[in-house]
Amino acid sequence: MPKKKAAIRSTDRRRRPVARPKPAAKSAAKPQLKRPPARRTTKARSTKARTAVSPARRGSTARTPQYVYPFGPNGADGDRHQKDLLGGKGANLAEMCNLGLPVPPGFTLSTEVCSYYYANRRTYPKTLEREVEKALAQVEREVKKKLGDKRDPLLVSVRSGARVSMPGMMDTVLNLGLNDATVAGLARASGNPRFAWDAYRRFVNMYADVVLGLKAKSDSHHEPFREAFEAKKKSRGVREDSDLGVDDLMELVKEYKAIVLERTGSAFPDDPREQLWGAIGAVFRSWNNERAVAYRSMNHISSAWGTAVSVCSMVFGNLGPDSGTGVAFTRDPSTGEKRFYGEYLMNAQGEDVVAGLRTPHPISTLATGAPAAWKELNRIVQLLEKHYRDMQDIEFTIERGRLWMLQCRNGKRTGFAAVKIAVDLVSEKLITQDEAIMRVPPTALDQLLQPVFIPAELEAARKDGRLLTKALNAGPGAASGRIAFSPTEAVARRERGENVVLVRVETSPDDILGMEASAGILTARGGMTSHAALVARQMGKVCVAGAGDLEIDYSHRSLTVGSWMLSEGDWISIDGSSGEVYAGKLGTQSSDVCSVLLEGAQPGPNSIYRSFDKLLSWADARRTLRVRANADQPDQCKNAVAFGAEGVGLCRTEHMFFAPGKIEAVREMILADKTADRVHALKKLLPLQRADFEGIFRAMAPRPVTIRSLDPPLHEFLPHDEPSIWAVARDLGVAPERVHAKVEALREQNPMLGLRGCRLGIVYPEITIMQARAIFQAACQVAKDTKKKPSLEIMIPLVGTRRELELQADVVRTVAEEVFAEMKIKVPFLVGTMIELPRAALTAGEIALAADFFSFGTNDLTQTTFGISRDDGGKFLPHYIEAEIHADDPFATLDREGVGRLMEIATREGRAAKPGLKIGICGEHGGDPRSIEFCNELGMDYVSCSPYRVPLARLAAAQAALRGA
Amino acid sequence: MPKKKAAIRSTDRRRRPVARPKPAAKSAAKPQLKRPPARRTTKARSTKARTAVSPARRGSTARTPQYVYPFGPNGADGDRHQKDLLGGKGANLAEMCNLGLPVPPGFTLSTEVCSYYYANRRTYPKTLEREVEKALAQVEREVKKKLGDKRDPLLVSVRSGARVSMPGMMDTVLNLGLNDATVAGLARASGNPRFAWDAYRRFVNMYADVVLGLKAKSDSHHEPFREAFEAKKKSRGVREDSDLGVDDLMELVKEYKAIVLERTGSAFPDDPREQLWGAIGAVFRSWNNERAVAYRSMNHISSAWGTAVSVCSMVFGNLGPDSGTGVAFTRDPSTGEKRFYGEYLMNAQGEDVVAGLRTPHPISTLATGAPAAWKELNRIVQLLEKHYRDMQDIEFTIERGRLWMLQCRNGKRTGFAAVKIAVDLVSEKLITQDEAIMRVPPTALDQLLQPVFIPAELEAARKDGRLLTKALNAGPGAASGRIAFSPTEAVARRERGENVVLVRVETSPDDILGMEASAGILTARGGMTSHAALVARQMGKVCVAGAGDLEIDYSHRSLTVGSWMLSEGDWISIDGSSGEVYAGKLGTQSSDVCSVLLEGAQPGPNSIYRSFDKLLSWADARRTLRVRANADQPDQCKNAVAFGAEGVGLCRTEHMFFAPGKIEAVREMILADKTADRVHALKKLLPLQRADFEGIFRAMAPRPVTIRSLDPPLHEFLPHDEPSIWAVARDLGVAPERVHAKVEALREQNPMLGLRGCRLGIVYPEITIMQARAIFQAACQVAKDTKKKPSLEIMIPLVGTRRELELQADVVRTVAEEVFAEMKIKVPFLVGTMIELPRAALTAGEIALAADFFSFGTNDLTQTTFGISRDDGGKFLPHYIEAEIHADDPFATLDREGVGRLMEIATREGRAAKPGLKIGICGEHGGDPRSIEFCNELGMDYVSCSPYRVPLARLAAAQAALRGA
Repeated sequence: MPKKKAAIRSTDRRRRPVARPKPAAKSAAKPQLKRPPARRTTKARSTKARTAVSPARRGSTARTPQYVYPFGPNGADGDRHQKDLLGGKGANLAEMCNLGLPVPPGFTLSTEVCSYYYANRRTYPKTLEREVEKALAQVEREVKKKLGDKRDPLLVSVRSGARVSMPGMMDTVLNLGLNDATVAGLARASGNPRFAWDAYRRFVNMYADVVLGLKAKSDSHHEPFREAFEAKKKSRGVREDSDLGVDDLMELVKEYKAIVLERTGSAFPDDPREQLWGAIGAVFRSWNNERAVAYRSMNHISSAWGTAVSVCSMVFGNLGPDSGTGVAFTRDPSTGEKRFYGEYLMNAQGEDVVAGLRTPHPISTLATGAPAAWKELNRIVQLLEKHYRDMQDIEFTIERGRLWMLQCRNGKRTGFAAVKIAVDLVSEKLITQDEAIMRVPPTALDQLLQPVFIPAELEAARKDGRLLTKALNAGPGAASGRIAFSPTEAVARRERGENVVLVRVETSPDDILGMEASAGILTARGGMTSHAALVARQMGKVCVAGAGDLEIDYSHRSLTVGSWMLSEGDWISIDGSSGEVYAGKLGTQSSDVCSVLLEGAQPGPNSIYRSFDKLLSWADARRTLRVRANADQPDQCKNAVAFGAEGVGLCRTEHMFFAPGKIEAVREMILADKTADRVHALKKLLPLQRADFEGIFRAMAPRPVTIRSLDPPLHEFLPHDEPSIWAVARDLGVAPERVHAKVEALREQNPMLGLRGCRLGIVYPEITIMQARAIFQAACQVAKDTKKKPSLEIMIPLVGTRRELELQADVVRTVAEEVFAEMKIKVPFLVGTMIELPRAALTAGEIALAADFFSFGTNDLTQTTFGISRDDGGKFLPHYIEAEIHADDPFATLDREGVGRLMEIATREGRAAKPGLKIGICGEHGGDPRSIEFCNELGMDYVSCSPYRVPLARLAAAQAALRGA
Repeated sequence: MPKKKAAIRSTDRRRRPVARPKPAAKSAAKPQLKRPPARRTTKARSTKARTAVSPARRGSTARTPQYVYPFGPNGADGDRHQKDLLGGKGANLAEMCNLGLPVPPGFTLSTEVCSYYYANRRTYPKTLEREVEKALAQVEREVKKKLGDKRDPLLVSVRSGARVSMPGMMDTVLNLGLNDATVAGLARASGNPRFAWDAYRRFVNMYADVVLGLKAKSDSHHEPFREAFEAKKKSRGVREDSDLGVDDLMELVKEYKAIVLERTGSAFPDDPREQLWGAIGAVFRSWNNERAVAYRSMNHISSAWGTAVSVCSMVFGNLGPDSGTGVAFTRDPSTGEKRFYGEYLMNAQGEDVVAGLRTPHPISTLATGAPAAWKELNRIVQLLEKHYRDMQDIEFTIERGRLWMLQCRNGKRTGFAAVKIAVDLVSEKLITQDEAIMRVPPTALDQLLQPVFIPAELEAARKDGRLLTKALNAGPGAASGRIAFSPTEAVARRERGENVVLVRVETSPDDILGMEASAGILTARGGMTSHAALVARQMGKVCVAGAGDLEIDYSHRSLTVGSWMLSEGDWISIDGSSGEVYAGKLGTQSSDVCSVLLEGAQPGPNSIYRSFDKLLSWADARRTLRVRANADQPDQCKNAVAFGAEGVGLCRTEHMFFAPGKIEAVREMILADKTADRVHALKKLLPLQRADFEGIFRAMAPRPVTIRSLDPPLHEFLPHDEPSIWAVARDLGVAPERVHAKVEALREQNPMLGLRGCRLGIVYPEITIMQARAIFQAACQVAKDTKKKPSLEIMIPLVGTRRELELQADVVRTVAEEVFAEMKIKVPFLVGTMIELPRAALTAGEIALAADFFSFGTNDLTQTTFGISRDDGGKFLPHYIEAEIHADDPFATLDREGVGRLMEIATREGRAAKPGLKIGICGEHGGDPRSIEFCNELGMDYVSCSPYRVPLARLAAAQAALRGA
């Protein structure tokens, strides 16, 4: 119970102007566009029927604010627009009441109570108790039962409900209100003593775990309630839970209570009101449990939002064969197909449907099982989908033939379903094209492009019983590889050219290198927010996490699951989209969309490609940002164009250098001590580079291609271990000592901050000359051959001063003139620079005078602005994200305050110095939806991302344009 | 001769508005305070007597600008304030004419001609020729001789003269006007044919070298004029130059001309006017020769300033025993003592005094040698010193008893002399204290603190003939060490604990590590601006460069000089202040100032300490910036206080960790896998750190001490080679594999951007807890023991977000409360942060809310803003400075445009968020005068630098304050 005195003091404090925002409110300082809509929209206020907006919330003084919002058969205080205040669950329960749907009456404690609770040393507003009592009395009137009534007690559920769904992250208490007295009343009233005592047993178990904190004190090896339950079954010689009788359950309740007394030092609370306040407090506390905090930080949910608490009168699906419970979706959440989809169990409580002990029935069979309820259910879900204009996820209970709606919300769905449903809803005229565009999270498109296991092989594996387990789908895609049980082993196998799946009990920062070397990661412990899951998604690796069935034995380098035992080096296959794990090797194939776009397959009549294509054509019509791709090879360019890229935004010339036949000449160039020798080696490279560029220009012309001159530190091209050094020395006919010495001389403490980028071209202009020559010769040749002139944008990397750019641009322009004269043809070209150093951004007004265009290299810009190396950040970035130091990984989503400010300065001052300056982005942020939105705000001309992210970027750009409009 | 047509076109172009500033004008974009005074001061205009300001320069159109400024017995067109226009030489010649002093008449072509020349494809303004002819005619009238007159020809010198002196960097031509005809007239008129033919020989040699470019085509092994001369002496069997007769000289002139014809393909020009224009062009061209460019970039001289050219009628000191020439200073340029100091030779030309073939006489003996000239000279120098109010450096010639002044300028002086003269001039009431402060370059104070060779040992070495050579004093200080001929050898010897002097023919970027390992660097080739000299000064190493007498034989690892041969490993001693090189080992001792300040010696009556102390007391009275020192040990703190530090601005706690007895515990801490083990190891470190802090606080209390929590990547504390790994494993009782694995796990690609700074304390809060505990326990103990409360400023490094600072500050504040409670005493403390990442600067308004103070860590801030690692920049930064990409090394002098802009943002927004926020700087820029000036402009509270730079910073801060006022 709240302490009244503290509450009063706290209320006073609340009105004081806040001099320093609290850390918890940190993210509130972010720029506006990232913000969700204001806590309570004007619309919400206007539709609020019965409660005047409380004066306190208007900022005036005396009158008390409203904290409790009842809902029931006579409508509700609140509606679906008030998710910020009532949580998703509370707002939708209110909405269903307003629609006149059958909802068990109840009330919601608003998220403001949660904020108050945390801001005031975990106390409640002093008026709360009175409001709860009033709402409870209303519920009691409506259901005609009273909390604690010995004859026919009201039982309630106490559930969390945040603004956005955080499934399973917070706590819930069911069957609240039972004690030794009321259980008898329930038994009588229900005519089902076994039901009553089973409910009581479950309640004690759940309440003790959640409210009294026994779960936190237990571990997986010692769960006292479960042990007592199993012991009881054993002593009775029964196998099924349902075989235990009323007496057994009565004994178990006593035993459970004894466990509570022993482990907490206090008796189990019998007073239903004490139970109620205990449960409310537990739900508020669960807002800050470890899982919830981690989930929030992953999903960009502010810790300041808080959860609401909905207290709901219980209805029971386990009162007999005419009772039941189920969950359903108005459309297939996995394919998006328009069919009523779900499952149910008769004579069961909600948790039984998900627990998997009994196999639920497909929802369609309810038509025969409970025809009246089925009819009503169908009417309601159709109404709900029309009302919400989106696919709904509902929970329902049938209590003795009567249907009750326990929840509805916009259903979670796969990327496939998101695309199909959005496009279908437009056909059905439920939403507009703009709305369809806004409905699909751009990242959902990723799924449509991921490779999948070859269906036949997958089918065969299932038939052969090779499905080992199904766990969390923590990183989408399909991966097949040889098992490595340690990061070192993973790296060693990868270096031997093997495909590897890293299998660990759980991962830690020390495993990073091993994770990088693996195609997929499989862990036995940890959830969607575990280290493995976080890092794998960061790396774009396939990941299945929390596969608790696996017994991993590091000492014998083996894993056991069911009857299978696999050893290190054995093949294993994991599906990060479904969470399934298979023994053996499974082939992968292109997704439906990719096979159409990249392989020229004809889309089938139900192919998701059709919806995908329609959605993106709508998106293209709305976006103003152009989308280019980062591509270094002709085939990548072809893919990029197939995915809709309008040009190449970054062609990394050095990637071509690694090919056999080229790397030798590159090494000769690097090992040269004299300029003449270097020029000699560069001459060998010239035709090779020219051929590369020709392929690219043929694929892209007349679209623009941005080519970056040599960027990485030279030592990256040299061998580092003894055998390779000897091999190189032999190839080049020099002494190994010389190679060794050069490798040493080129070694840098911090290569990221060393002799690289334009510094190479400035110290060795002959390198830039060769590259420029190759580029222009190739472009002129393609222009002659194809009559389509390539459009070149030559980009000088790592510029920090105007003079650097000038020196390199002079070289490029001089070479261009030479080649144009030699080949008697000209091609259009620009010379610009990357803005990837803070100094470049800060002096962009100067640099712009020497640049035809800017391209933000936000990978490097983020590295230097934060002083964090991407190579090394893995050691602490996951920790940082967990500790909410960074709301997001700044390498995945642009940091607006720091990096973004530099970009804003560079854009503004660059264009002030040179109006109309072309500006783009080629860092990996170019493929991140929120970063794309920021680029759109800055007024950039284009974003560039990897070919497979182009569709995502097109959609994100359209969303940004619509939001901006 | 200028092409008239080109000149007209160029004049047109000159009036066009300049859309893009040219690269050459780059440095003109720098902030105002770095700028020299406007090109022509108002004062200069008002004192300009005879020439109206030309309309063209006022921006109007038609009338021609003035390019030529005559000077002579009737006064001059121009004065000493017009150095920007006339160059230092021309302005001072004009000034001396205006003072009525005997100056050979002449005229100056202004620096605007030079600018025009470079801006217009090396052509001259079309009016120039007419102006030159007019000025020449005036000279001819005044000296009553005519250029090219066969009977009594006018000879002239053509000299360079930039705004600031660039000694020896540009070219000069003497005796111009001689040809086969005029030489005869000169012989007749002077009555000295040998003099005339020797002048002719010297002229042909000099003109061919400088104007016709023969010098650039020669090398030290093949100097044809020298060879012909030596051959002539040999064939005549004479030893001395003066033993050659008139016929020999006549033959030599013929031979020289033949050499010119052979090597240039054209005959030597006989027309005096052609000679004159040739020489003028050569001087303008020499503005951009390699030496001059390098000198400018070293000395922050803009390439846009250009040089003037002074054409002066020749007077001769070699016309007989009543002629002579000399150079002199009005005070001793090495000690500053007030005595007329200089040397002269009778019957000699200026170059003979400096060439060292004849030993010049001390100036005082002139009193007996040429009493009339001596009297006149004394009158003049006294007048000049009073007039210029500074020590003057003069050149004079006595031609047949008559004194001519050829040059006067403020004399270059040592740091010792700069301090003494400035203070003495105040005593003499010639200048004010403010002026005295502005007169001394802060870096001059460095010299007063550098160790010197022990005089007795130096004396003995000289007596023993161990002085090997004297070359360029390229990096001040005294160093003694064993010779290493290669960087690898230097590193190896250093690792064995030896003192090393690296001896190289010349150094290259590959030598950096070897240079770092050496106490001093000695090169046989290269000037003050060579790689060795630049890098050595950057590193603060003693350096003697360009010791051409040394023959270095890498293959035999030996050097030969005179009769000496030294091998690798032999001792050698170099004095980077005098340029002297000695064989063997020489002991060093503290300088005069240091022995007084640090060792408590009594200053002698003539000790430079007295002037030093007076100057700094004046400085202290004027500066508003406080000066602190970076110090990690009690003795460093004591030194810092002795040098005038008002606190410690940076105490790097990790420096304490390397001491034996501590490093073991540090390693144990790092090797710990579990928090508990780490805490255990930290417990061992606690008393050790506490003891360190006690010493520091005792030395500093009650002055403020800024302590930075642990900063470097942990792997820096671990061993990296096998034997050390085994040793550590043995010490700690763990398997070597474990140490190995940990070293590997901690290895980072870019440690500068890795797990370091506050990231360590956030991932391992127990480290910060231990450090805070040690700090507060020590402070409380010292407060109890001494009754002086230490004033603590605890500084969290590498903060990029407000939250990081908050998390670490919370830890510190919690520990403080605990310790204060335990020890029942409180000490004042602040918790602040370093601003050393661009993101910290960009979000300083946020961070300030969590900070009690800011301290700019400009080393790291420069690294990240430029994306240049200090460890690796050596490979290209010298090249960058040479190519004028960076005007200065940004690690030595703050980059105002980039890093400075971030500092300005952070200062402004930090103080806007928290008015009065204390702000300082603790990067190495805190000891750089120009950076200190910038800090003063930003309104910082203090700068912090190494203890030995504190006096410099005090002076620089005073200069900044005076400039700002």
